[in-house]
Amino acid sequence: MSNKPQLTVVKIGGNVIDDAIALGSFLKDFAAIQGAKILVHGGGKLATRTAESLGISAVFHEGRRITDAPMLEVAVMTYAGWINKSITAALHGYGSNAMGFTGADGNLILSKKRTNPAVDFGFVGDVVSVNTELLKTLLLQDVVPVFCAVTHDGNGQLLNTNADTIASTLAVGCTGYFDAKLLYCFEKKGVLLDVNDEDSVIKTLTFEAYRNLKEQGAIHSGMLPKLENCFNALNEGVKQIGIGSPAMIKGETHTLIKR
Amino acid sequence: MSNKPQLTVVKIGGNVIDDAIALGSFLKDFAAIQGAKILVHGGGKLATRTAESLGISAVFHEGRRITDAPMLEVAVMTYAGWINKSITAALHGYGSNAMGFTGADGNLILSKKRTNPAVDFGFVGDVVSVNTELLKTLLLQDVVPVFCAVTHDGNGQLLNTNADTIASTLAVGCTGYFDAKLLYCFEKKGVLLDVNDEDSVIKTLTFEAYRNLKEQGAIHSGMLPKLENCFNALNEGVKQIGIGSPAMIKGETHTLIKR
Repeated sequence: MSNKPQLTVVKIGGNVIDDAIALGSFLKDFAAIQGAKILVHGGGKLATRTAESLGISAVFHEGRRITDAPMLEVAVMTYAGWINKSITAALHGYGSNAMGFTGADGNLILSKKRTNPAVDFGFVGDVVSVNTELLKTLLLQDVVPVFCAVTHDGNGQLLNTNADTIASTLAVGCTGYFDAKLLYCFEKKGVLLDVNDEDSVIKTLTFEAYRNLKEQGAIHSGMLPKLENCFNALNEGVKQIGIGSPAMIKGETHTLIKR
Repeated sequence: MSNKPQLTVVKIGGNVIDDAIALGSFLKDFAAIQGAKILVHGGGKLATRTAESLGISAVFHEGRRITDAPMLEVAVMTYAGWINKSITAALHGYGSNAMGFTGADGNLILSKKRTNPAVDFGFVGDVVSVNTELLKTLLLQDVVPVFCAVTHDGNGQLLNTNADTIASTLAVGCTGYFDAKLLYCFEKKGVLLDVNDEDSVIKTLTFEAYRNLKEQGAIHSGMLPKLENCFNALNEGVKQIGIGSPAMIKGETHTLIKR
């Protein structure tokens, strides 16, 4: 056992954000987590809906969304504006001293605009660094940081950034001072052995087991980058990682990822 | 002279926010202010424009806007989302470690929904308290707080709040630790003796001079609540207050309000 204080980083996606009742129930459970904690949230359908209402069309390249200037404005309005601040205010109602952030705030997450010789994904950023000193100061003041998936390049440009990566980067960045636990909440109960059977949750997944299952083609291809990301975070000092439904934070069935 | 560190609180309104070039130039000057500083910004036309595009109609009662639920969502999206985060990111480009806030973040500004037996103004809040301890911690870490005009009631409800009041409340709240200076930037060069003459700026306005000018009807009625607010802030410990154009922060002509 380490003597470091505990830190729990929880990431929720659109499926929780788009359901007001599920979100309220989740936030109440999240507020009850003991010790230092960070919430990272994705976007949900509000951005798409708002863009549609504003007459802004989504642009895709091979199934991947391009963040052009109007879409970035909508992303910042909805993710950093309404969703982030609604969650922050709601957490105060449940007794958590929440503080909502983009990566631009206090330079908490610096990123770099993604460049790709073949296709310009627009205002999308890959994480460069985390301002761990400021984050630590906030956590030690019992502040509960709530991050949306927006970062900045340090030169005035806001950038859309993957929420899963933000969660793992924050957890890794805090390992110097905290024993970090990372929980990815999504629409399934965990990593499934049979994608059609919700009850086939793999309870514990080591790197060796993962490699074998991957070779057998038993893990759904959409899970592969998520799991690679998890093992990288474990290699960089994160203590444990859970993948499962939002009820996971109350200890319900989920997949525990271990080295 | 006091031995307290200096704090400058600057409030800008829609006229600066709606002009990208004026805003950029102002933010560069703001970033150059020495010592602890806080920026408070109003809304500008983006909220009205966004609401119109989304098909949300503004509701007024005797010329005053009613903040109903759809309008609150638009206010939070535009003020706390796009405007606040664009300013925050831009300030980093000018070397300021800016952090964008609503009053909900870290419970920095707690407010109470305004109740009026005659008319319901909707989700509008009057300031109750400032979390001065957390604000002081941030300022001492060289963080530059950037506030939009949104607060919360502590029970999950976000509330629209007057930006001038937020600025004076923050300045007053910090007087225990800082020598606070408050600068209100608006579309005139200062308080004018003749509202049609931009060069009739009153350089120094004491409470006695203000009372006399008010009795003579020489001060434009729209300035009266602003000035009452200023003298209240001075009575509560703010050291000096300036009213003028955004160029005031570089020392250009403005009205200095003294007790």
